[in-house]
Amino acid sequence: MLAEIKGLNEECGIFGVWNHPQAAEITYYGLHSLQHRGQEGAGIVATDGKVLRGHRNLGLLADVFKHGELEGLPGSGAIGHVRYATAGGKSLGNVQPFLFHFQDSSLALAHNGNLINAKTLRKELESEGAIFQTSSDTEVLAHLMKRSRTGDFMQDLKVALRKVKGGFAYMLLTENAMIAALDPNGFRPLSIGRIGDSYVIASETCAFETVGAEFVRDVEPGELIVVDDDGLHIDSFTKDIKHSICSMEYIYFARPDSDIAGINVHSARKRSGKQLAREAFVDADVVTGVPDSSISAAIGYAEEAGLPYELGLIKNRYVARTFIQPSQELREQGVRMKLSAVRGVVEGKRVVMIDDSIVRGTTSKRIVNLLREAGALEVHVRIASPPLAFPCFYGIDIQTRNELIAANYSVDEICRIIGADSLQYLSEDGLIDAIGRPYPDEPYGGLCMAYFNGDYPTPLYDYEAEYLASLEAQKNGL
Amino acid sequence: MLAEIKGLNEECGIFGVWNHPQAAEITYYGLHSLQHRGQEGAGIVATDGKVLRGHRNLGLLADVFKHGELEGLPGSGAIGHVRYATAGGKSLGNVQPFLFHFQDSSLALAHNGNLINAKTLRKELESEGAIFQTSSDTEVLAHLMKRSRTGDFMQDLKVALRKVKGGFAYMLLTENAMIAALDPNGFRPLSIGRIGDSYVIASETCAFETVGAEFVRDVEPGELIVVDDDGLHIDSFTKDIKHSICSMEYIYFARPDSDIAGINVHSARKRSGKQLAREAFVDADVVTGVPDSSISAAIGYAEEAGLPYELGLIKNRYVARTFIQPSQELREQGVRMKLSAVRGVVEGKRVVMIDDSIVRGTTSKRIVNLLREAGALEVHVRIASPPLAFPCFYGIDIQTRNELIAANYSVDEICRIIGADSLQYLSEDGLIDAIGRPYPDEPYGGLCMAYFNGDYPTPLYDYEAEYLASLEAQKNGL
Amino acid sequence: MLAEIKGLNEECGIFGVWNHPQAAEITYYGLHSLQHRGQEGAGIVATDGKVLRGHRNLGLLADVFKHGELEGLPGSGAIGHVRYATAGGKSLGNVQPFLFHFQDSSLALAHNGNLINAKTLRKELESEGAIFQTSSDTEVLAHLMKRSRTGDFMQDLKVALRKVKGGFAYMLLTENAMIAALDPNGFRPLSIGRIGDSYVIASETCAFETVGAEFVRDVEPGELIVVDDDGLHIDSFTKDIKHSICSMEYIYFARPDSDIAGINVHSARKRSGKQLAREAFVDADVVTGVPDSSISAAIGYAEEAGLPYELGLIKNRYVARTFIQPSQELREQGVRMKLSAVRGVVEGKRVVMIDDSIVRGTTSKRIVNLLREAGALEVHVRIASPPLAFPCFYGIDIQTRNELIAANYSVDEICRIIGADSLQYLSEDGLIDAIGRPYPDEPYGGLCMAYFNGDYPTPLYDYEAEYLASLEAQKNGL
Amino acid sequence: MLAEIKGLNEECGIFGVWNHPQAAEITYYGLHSLQHRGQEGAGIVATDGKVLRGHRNLGLLADVFKHGELEGLPGSGAIGHVRYATAGGKSLGNVQPFLFHFQDSSLALAHNGNLINAKTLRKELESEGAIFQTSSDTEVLAHLMKRSRTGDFMQDLKVALRKVKGGFAYMLLTENAMIAALDPNGFRPLSIGRIGDSYVIASETCAFETVGAEFVRDVEPGELIVVDDDGLHIDSFTKDIKHSICSMEYIYFARPDSDIAGINVHSARKRSGKQLAREAFVDADVVTGVPDSSISAAIGYAEEAGLPYELGLIKNRYVARTFIQPSQELREQGVRMKLSAVRGVVEGKRVVMIDDSIVRGTTSKRIVNLLREAGALEVHVRIASPPLAFPCFYGIDIQTRNELIAANYSVDEICRIIGADSLQYLSEDGLIDAIGRPYPDEPYGGLCMAYFNGDYPTPLYDYEAEYLASLEAQKNGL
Repeated sequence: MLAEIKGLNEECGIFGVWNHPQAAEITYYGLHSLQHRGQEGAGIVATDGKVLRGHRNLGLLADVFKHGELEGLPGSGAIGHVRYATAGGKSLGNVQPFLFHFQDSSLALAHNGNLINAKTLRKELESEGAIFQTSSDTEVLAHLMKRSRTGDFMQDLKVALRKVKGGFAYMLLTENAMIAALDPNGFRPLSIGRIGDSYVIASETCAFETVGAEFVRDVEPGELIVVDDDGLHIDSFTKDIKHSICSMEYIYFARPDSDIAGINVHSARKRSGKQLAREAFVDADVVTGVPDSSISAAIGYAEEAGLPYELGLIKNRYVARTFIQPSQELREQGVRMKLSAVRGVVEGKRVVMIDDSIVRGTTSKRIVNLLREAGALEVHVRIASPPLAFPCFYGIDIQTRNELIAANYSVDEICRIIGADSLQYLSEDGLIDAIGRPYPDEPYGGLCMAYFNGDYPTPLYDYEAEYLASLEAQKNGL
Repeated sequence: MLAEIKGLNEECGIFGVWNHPQAAEITYYGLHSLQHRGQEGAGIVATDGKVLRGHRNLGLLADVFKHGELEGLPGSGAIGHVRYATAGGKSLGNVQPFLFHFQDSSLALAHNGNLINAKTLRKELESEGAIFQTSSDTEVLAHLMKRSRTGDFMQDLKVALRKVKGGFAYMLLTENAMIAALDPNGFRPLSIGRIGDSYVIASETCAFETVGAEFVRDVEPGELIVVDDDGLHIDSFTKDIKHSICSMEYIYFARPDSDIAGINVHSARKRSGKQLAREAFVDADVVTGVPDSSISAAIGYAEEAGLPYELGLIKNRYVARTFIQPSQELREQGVRMKLSAVRGVVEGKRVVMIDDSIVRGTTSKRIVNLLREAGALEVHVRIASPPLAFPCFYGIDIQTRNELIAANYSVDEICRIIGADSLQYLSEDGLIDAIGRPYPDEPYGGLCMAYFNGDYPTPLYDYEAEYLASLEAQKNGL
Repeated sequence: MLAEIKGLNEECGIFGVWNHPQAAEITYYGLHSLQHRGQEGAGIVATDGKVLRGHRNLGLLADVFKHGELEGLPGSGAIGHVRYATAGGKSLGNVQPFLFHFQDSSLALAHNGNLINAKTLRKELESEGAIFQTSSDTEVLAHLMKRSRTGDFMQDLKVALRKVKGGFAYMLLTENAMIAALDPNGFRPLSIGRIGDSYVIASETCAFETVGAEFVRDVEPGELIVVDDDGLHIDSFTKDIKHSICSMEYIYFARPDSDIAGINVHSARKRSGKQLAREAFVDADVVTGVPDSSISAAIGYAEEAGLPYELGLIKNRYVARTFIQPSQELREQGVRMKLSAVRGVVEGKRVVMIDDSIVRGTTSKRIVNLLREAGALEVHVRIASPPLAFPCFYGIDIQTRNELIAANYSVDEICRIIGADSLQYLSEDGLIDAIGRPYPDEPYGGLCMAYFNGDYPTPLYDYEAEYLASLEAQKNGL
Repeated sequence: MLAEIKGLNEECGIFGVWNHPQAAEITYYGLHSLQHRGQEGAGIVATDGKVLRGHRNLGLLADVFKHGELEGLPGSGAIGHVRYATAGGKSLGNVQPFLFHFQDSSLALAHNGNLINAKTLRKELESEGAIFQTSSDTEVLAHLMKRSRTGDFMQDLKVALRKVKGGFAYMLLTENAMIAALDPNGFRPLSIGRIGDSYVIASETCAFETVGAEFVRDVEPGELIVVDDDGLHIDSFTKDIKHSICSMEYIYFARPDSDIAGINVHSARKRSGKQLAREAFVDADVVTGVPDSSISAAIGYAEEAGLPYELGLIKNRYVARTFIQPSQELREQGVRMKLSAVRGVVEGKRVVMIDDSIVRGTTSKRIVNLLREAGALEVHVRIASPPLAFPCFYGIDIQTRNELIAANYSVDEICRIIGADSLQYLSEDGLIDAIGRPYPDEPYGGLCMAYFNGDYPTPLYDYEAEYLASLEAQKNGL
């Protein structure tokens, strides 16, 4: 399942609100509903129209703000961020929003996504004398703005936005406006909501339910949204756009109660499960899903297949950051913490196990084994997405094919490796149809399917050379 | 749902292991899988055959042991405890296991359940000069043992066990044995497992999966289990027993992957949902359950009713102890943290909402309201147990009928109070049959159904007078 | 210096206040000025006339109460305690005040000193069925009271106080009174002060300056002081008394700004230094003292000897509990943290180094070495008390002579061991006179000089056998 | 006393070591001995020749590194910093050393002192597109270096060092060198020591005693010291130098065991006290000093005046950051925490109270009052430096004369304000002579006496206009 690569990806959650007397509190609750997008760090910056004040730290949102820090963030505008750790990036310095103080103004900046030309841009900027304080690519945008120097903030920002490439949903905060911008492909979701006269912007619509906001519209690719005391302004920094919504948002990342491009995530997953049952039915006694992200697909599979859906796998709800991992010795003795198979449900049964995806295969193998140890007679694995064979450069830090089992082995081989009785994946078209083709006239219905077919919607810039080399290497069997 | 009374009940989890080189670690992982039974405090005592060493504190298990405390607990025997806060009892002093040091020996003691004659016993003991260090009833057992003074530890323990009344699953640890005892009614579950030559004893069998143990047998009412270096010994302190397994363990408390009296909890819940569909079918578009405890019943209802099961309600997984609760003002604006209705699933739909129980009705009202605000056309509430109208004295701290809505209002009235379109409960017989009559020849199939019918399987001792007065008062309409 | 045995002794500080609207706060500030008497744990219990509430923990006072715990201790009466760790006793359970809840009342108890018949009493009590929760001897008093059962609290207390032997200054708190008691020898200081209509009782008078109280009188040996809403009552539990004030309180323990038996501690120390100059003059260039406890004596020595007093040794003020100790390797390279010699002061000089005492000799050796490395030509050590050759059983946990260098070596030998050019001690009479004979008609002027001459003012009870054996062993050269 | 302005000044401590296998540990111990120069934050950066790694946080050194952070800083080169909070600067972002990551190298930077043209430089840099991450002036140096772009690190650094004005002792660390630089006036002390083949550089020589290093030489004004694997290199960035050692380092800041320009600080202070006795003798019974910084002067005064030196004021050693300050109400009742007068010493006595300086006068008034309340008959205040009447711009954040009592009142008026019986200050020449004229041929013997006479050794740049305006305003009685 995709949870295997947690800690490697760069998914994050962003949230902002303007014109609300308790802007920082609202942001706190909004971020709370986005915590599934990032558990390694959290931060909020707020403005009272004069000063920008911020607090951020490593850890869960609730821990970062447990000592009354919210009280130190007065004002009616705020933005916030929750983040995953990226490789080598578990440092406080990289926790967002970043807060830049200039001579006569300040700027806060939060970013969800991954730039693909950041190294080149950074190199250029540094050779011109810029000093970067973080190892985060996010900082590039601020330096680009400062170099533009048209004398007009919005103009500088547009110039900068046209220079950065890849996946980005940005939120910015100044003393007098909250600003959002989405990359020309709209890889990452970003939506606008309203609480009375206040506007909120969030990575997922589930945040709107949490703060009592109603949905207004999605931010479209290439748009630059400005919310200030005059209200909401929709501008754009480019018209050269194409919808390429990350299909993994539907499959794994987003919360089931969110809608992306008007499509409910749980429903899309359930339809994927139904389609999978049509494409890959197997006669069995029970259907079970790997919690939490594969539950919806498992329900759909069971419903379509006419098989009973059961809780055959249970996830421990109390796995905290401070939890002591069992030693290798204890693990070999069978001590396991996160997932349990339910003997009373699977013993003596033929089990269909639904998962969202297979990354390295190690987790799938472990779960198949768990089910067998709990007495399952047969374990048939069904994956509610096509084989994951290509890296992502727009926000998930899988940047070589080496770590992807589906890039290196056939379905039959994977089946043997994970020890299943049978293995089948959902087809590409099946997935696109099940999600529901949000933009039917665009390629893949407006989805980015590069994970599955290597068809990247943009040039790869900094990553191009290494990626091509890896393809070549693989071709040559290295 | 029963989660409403979290914080009021005295449910706990206990675990012990003997003859394992990493006894404290095994206990840690075992307790981890019992964390759902108690999140307010945790502790472990271990012995190396010479000394008993313990550590305990308020908080989640992972937090209590996050600074390397396990390393200070060497030895091959250990017991541990996770506990709920009881009213007024949120003090470190009450976190178990208790550790008593005597002149020439030590004793650790952990308790799941509630004694019903503790006040009387404590009064007697104090009048004889005993000093209690805690406000916990658990301490009574140790004082009773010291007063017995037959000169024989096991004899003293049996004398003490015969004096305490109510619900109790005890675990004790001395320098040379691990001991478990279960009350004559077996209100609380307690099971024995084995890892090679090591024995483990746990409140729920889910702990066995977690530590790689295999199930051996349940502890029976009135039994006294001793595990020492000679192995497992089964003794008893009374033969006057009757099975009265708390039905709430099946309905709400236990983890779905546990078996109680050989019956899997998830399966019992799913059967309850199916039975509920037969007794209380309603035509609707979707079935949804209140997470987490009502999910199994909702799956069963949907399957039996032939209606689609959907994730209509989502629980936030990151509600930490340090979380800042929204102010009254923000709550009124619609800020909500723990539960979200999924608009994409319920909007424009007739919804069947399955819950495990209704205690005060306030939570049910809130959830019905959530669903309506998310666009549900109709909300039909179905409860997978009979009306909860009588207090419990064996481990859940509801001790007056005043707080129970079903003790004070008819089903129709409750339906109006919670704002549902219709409300129906499962019948008593329906519940007993669905659970599966673990002891078919005993009353109620060996279950305690007192919550629902007031038929308490024991005298009420300390609680008798007040309980009768409350019944009388209610009769008189006070 | 005596600081060498920090961590081994049982010195503590106690404080109480009655009839003050902010009793817990006053206790906090009072204890703060007694922090030098114990840094390992702190606690406060307060009463509002109905309930006793307490908080205690390991650590410095400021840390123990840093999360607003004082706000949870309302009421106009309070007692508190700061404690040193005793061997094996670094456990939260032993941090005082202890709080005992009985059926219809509560009792808080704090203790400064050491009982010498506690083991015997505890054995008796346990054999009668008493359960001790701590390894602290303090608990004995409460059990003795409960066994007395005259039905009268004060009577029970007096009976219990007559049974315990050794050094004790007790403070007790009930819902309606604050009580203090001092052992029949008055080993530990205890004084009464007043803030308007409120009474305070404290281990040292320096606490009175801190809380704005004026000195009323000392508590006398054998007295039982009761402060309730009717005011101050002076009673006694025995008339069989003799003053034996611990001479170490003057020499080392007490703060220089405290008065004990009407004698200022700094002044007593300065007079000791002067007397030492008269008894043991040496021609030198500078006089320096080991901070902090030997500063006053060094000033006196310099003044009397007509030599310049200099800061030749500097103590780092920021040695925190969390400080990382240098590794053996770094220590050998000369890394040193607590004390520095001042090269600019001692280089090329003949130095008189004044210390309060020599316990094991290791610290003295290290300091002499420090001074030499900083360029001192000669180091003459002068000790402002006689050779410390006998253990203490009344509050300092030196219970064998083995660890005392002066019990095992002559002054000349010690001089060679510590590497000094010369070494001289103050005489017994010199010390007694310098302190000022608080009770001139009693032996040793009312002081306990047992450290120096083995003349214990009481039988030794539990310690007698072992002590005599150790004397015998030493005599036989073992 | 000068402690009054703690929290306002910018004094810091810096330390570095090169070619030591435990560089970070040595830095930790070195910084520990400099903790008196800054208690608000601490940090260390170390290099293993390839990477620079750092850790820094708010708080005392021991707290910042209490969780094993030192282990994450391997390598044989390291620099560290302890800092005071400056107004508005209590933010983690400002804690040093700063660590800058460039494309192909890294740079760590730590600073003691205050730049006086930082605002101007920062404005210029920002208008050229530079982004500052902190509000600290220290960052200016790095940006200046990056703008220089001669392609040669040392050349860039020299260019930058020539642009910054004011007081600065810098330490820099790269992958292959440790670098130190001192401003052309040498306002702040900086010395070089040696441990075998390792070089250490520290703000004060007391750090050398702590880490077992021997003194090599002071860093001279305008020098640029480079320590790399070839050893120690002494270069300079300017020859236009003049010694202006901050006289306050001798009077207040430095530790008594440090030598500055070869003069021991304790001895300088003691001589100041002696000189003060000659200039301002008063017949009295006791002499006492305000701890800790005035102790040496008090000893000198007493010795010269032939009066007894006593501990008349005691400072509580346990004033922690987490300490709860007494409420206004309790303060008015006389609750006081930091300083106590010793009744037993001052009661009925004529007291000479020696202090290092008077800033606002409020603390002096409070101490005089303390002594009187403790029974002093007369309190004669003697200040071991001249009236402090002019702001400092080189490292102490007093930037207007308004807050300085001596800038606004005559000595007689100040005497009345603080309630003393008499008040006298040391003369300017008396101070210079007592310190000992480190550079006898330079103005004021090489000392900066601007505090006392307004004779600033450099132009004031950014501060000029406001300073002149304040002089003017004062002249006009505003």
